[in-house]
Amino acid sequence: MVQIPKTPASSAPRSVPTSADVARLAGVSRATVSYVLNNSSAVRISEPTRRRVHEAARELGYVPHAAARSLRAGHSRTVLMPAPGFPVGPLYSRFIGELQWALGRLDYTVVQYGTAGPQGDDAARAWAELRPVAVLVPGSGLGPQGVEILKRSGARAVVTLGPEPVDGAHALLMDHEAVGHRAGRHLYDRGRRRIGVVLPAEPGLEVFSAPRLEGVRRAVRGTDATVTELHLAYEEHSAARLAARWRSLGLDAVFAYNDEYAMLLMRALQDEGVAVPAETAVIGADDLMLGRLLRPRLSTVHLELPSGRELAALVDRAVHDPGARPERHEVLGATVVHRESS
Amino acid sequence: MVQIPKTPASSAPRSVPTSADVARLAGVSRATVSYVLNNSSAVRISEPTRRRVHEAARELGYVPHAAARSLRAGHSRTVLMPAPGFPVGPLYSRFIGELQWALGRLDYTVVQYGTAGPQGDDAARAWAELRPVAVLVPGSGLGPQGVEILKRSGARAVVTLGPEPVDGAHALLMDHEAVGHRAGRHLYDRGRRRIGVVLPAEPGLEVFSAPRLEGVRRAVRGTDATVTELHLAYEEHSAARLAARWRSLGLDAVFAYNDEYAMLLMRALQDEGVAVPAETAVIGADDLMLGRLLRPRLSTVHLELPSGRELAALVDRAVHDPGARPERHEVLGATVVHRESS
Repeated sequence: MVQIPKTPASSAPRSVPTSADVARLAGVSRATVSYVLNNSSAVRISEPTRRRVHEAARELGYVPHAAARSLRAGHSRTVLMPAPGFPVGPLYSRFIGELQWALGRLDYTVVQYGTAGPQGDDAARAWAELRPVAVLVPGSGLGPQGVEILKRSGARAVVTLGPEPVDGAHALLMDHEAVGHRAGRHLYDRGRRRIGVVLPAEPGLEVFSAPRLEGVRRAVRGTDATVTELHLAYEEHSAARLAARWRSLGLDAVFAYNDEYAMLLMRALQDEGVAVPAETAVIGADDLMLGRLLRPRLSTVHLELPSGRELAALVDRAVHDPGARPERHEVLGATVVHRESS
Repeated sequence: MVQIPKTPASSAPRSVPTSADVARLAGVSRATVSYVLNNSSAVRISEPTRRRVHEAARELGYVPHAAARSLRAGHSRTVLMPAPGFPVGPLYSRFIGELQWALGRLDYTVVQYGTAGPQGDDAARAWAELRPVAVLVPGSGLGPQGVEILKRSGARAVVTLGPEPVDGAHALLMDHEAVGHRAGRHLYDRGRRRIGVVLPAEPGLEVFSAPRLEGVRRAVRGTDATVTELHLAYEEHSAARLAARWRSLGLDAVFAYNDEYAMLLMRALQDEGVAVPAETAVIGADDLMLGRLLRPRLSTVHLELPSGRELAALVDRAVHDPGARPERHEVLGATVVHRESS
């Protein structure tokens, strides 16, 4: 571990300039300072006065206080987004980036809230303290009570992104059951009948892996195919152990949860001399670049998340009409990309 | 693109309960409500009164307003962290997660600020509006003027994480020149003399790739070895184009920027029939799992970021002593992991 040594202490901070200081220096009222610096169109203020206020603010190093503004307005322009409680892949990162950009264009400030700390309703209370105008909650940590806490504190819109709707909140439903269903159906159509499904050992992923498993089961229900659960940690020796007992499992196919677990397992199977796809077909999910770089090229389920722009529009709509009936939208597109591994 | 259709509008929001409502219901003063709900130890308040306040707050769905509290205190417990302006890998994600956890344990609220929006001093002004008690800035977007703006607005600590120190801010220096130096030295020691260095075409990565290139140059300065810049986009056809003209370049080694670019390039070289490492040695950086899964196994530069716990301690120290001389620490550890590709 790189060490950060301590250094000795010293002196005191300066006082923070206020809008009163700016008003004094510019020779105007505090209200005028507020109108100018918050770009208010409610009052007509001459160009020279505006300039004087801006110059005084710059000279003093004054910036408006978002909290004071939000106290006056009763709410902020802050959209709060708790960081998801699961490890985030490149697909999700890109989605979040696009969403932040789109909300920024609509003049919202997006802040992400760290995962550490309170859970459940306590988390909702902690978020509410920041008086966000909207809250976007990924995963499944929020209940109806939490939604109520946020709304009572002035949040005009609560939007969940997850497998299940929550009473009182708008829901973007991400149906991971469909991901498993596509994978299972593909393997069945390729003539496979003994299908393994990888369940990652890493915590936080059950919310995705359980419905994916269920989707595979549904895809082969009423057929002669069987489904076997395979527990796998994202570590080489876990994959090697699973591969070592592969032939005793008698499987002819595996849905490996996602492309990264598929890469890990496929390498272990190849090291064990199991031919892919001849002996065992492999399919991942996410359609990452790395799947195209593997040999054989990895089959995968391509996921399509909603566009950040459309989700931003939903948030904006909900903020303008906080009494509207919660919207529910299925937003996860899932299609099989058939390559060489299956 | 998944479509989110619009739904029609309706009704109005309810009013937000205030601490005055809680005081009325509990039959106490507003000051008492504030003392109880903010866990203040400044005043002794009886257990039954505490209970009455908590019950009233729960019944009304009241939560304290962090902004109001921060207005009273003159600053918040908010540590603001602008999202980095470069694509983030798993190594950095883990570091951020640990840092947030550690700051949470010290009772700070970490909020991440979206990348979209203002740049430079304007960005500093936008951050300052949130009156954070500390600001952690990754990358190289902040100048001395921005540090001054943040401090004038009450930020007690500004910490940069990047290649260069910024006047007035604490600096965690991440010396990516050393990463390139280790890679270059390793390739030279393996007997290679015509060394290519990958520069990613993706924007935002120059802040890492330029010093890494410089590090390779320094490693072979005064020797008979040459260094060739190779521009590569993270796309299969870009790698295929580079691989197609590989033999005309006459290189016997390549430092491929990181493990992901190394995987991309190594696959393209192998598809082109270039033997790794016999004809061309390849080394990446980051020491990701995928490097161990490649064949030949990928040599890499293992990076060690500072521990989130130690960085959190630095922030806490700086907040308690805002007048202290800025600390500077070299925090990036870099060691070569020699595997089969070099």
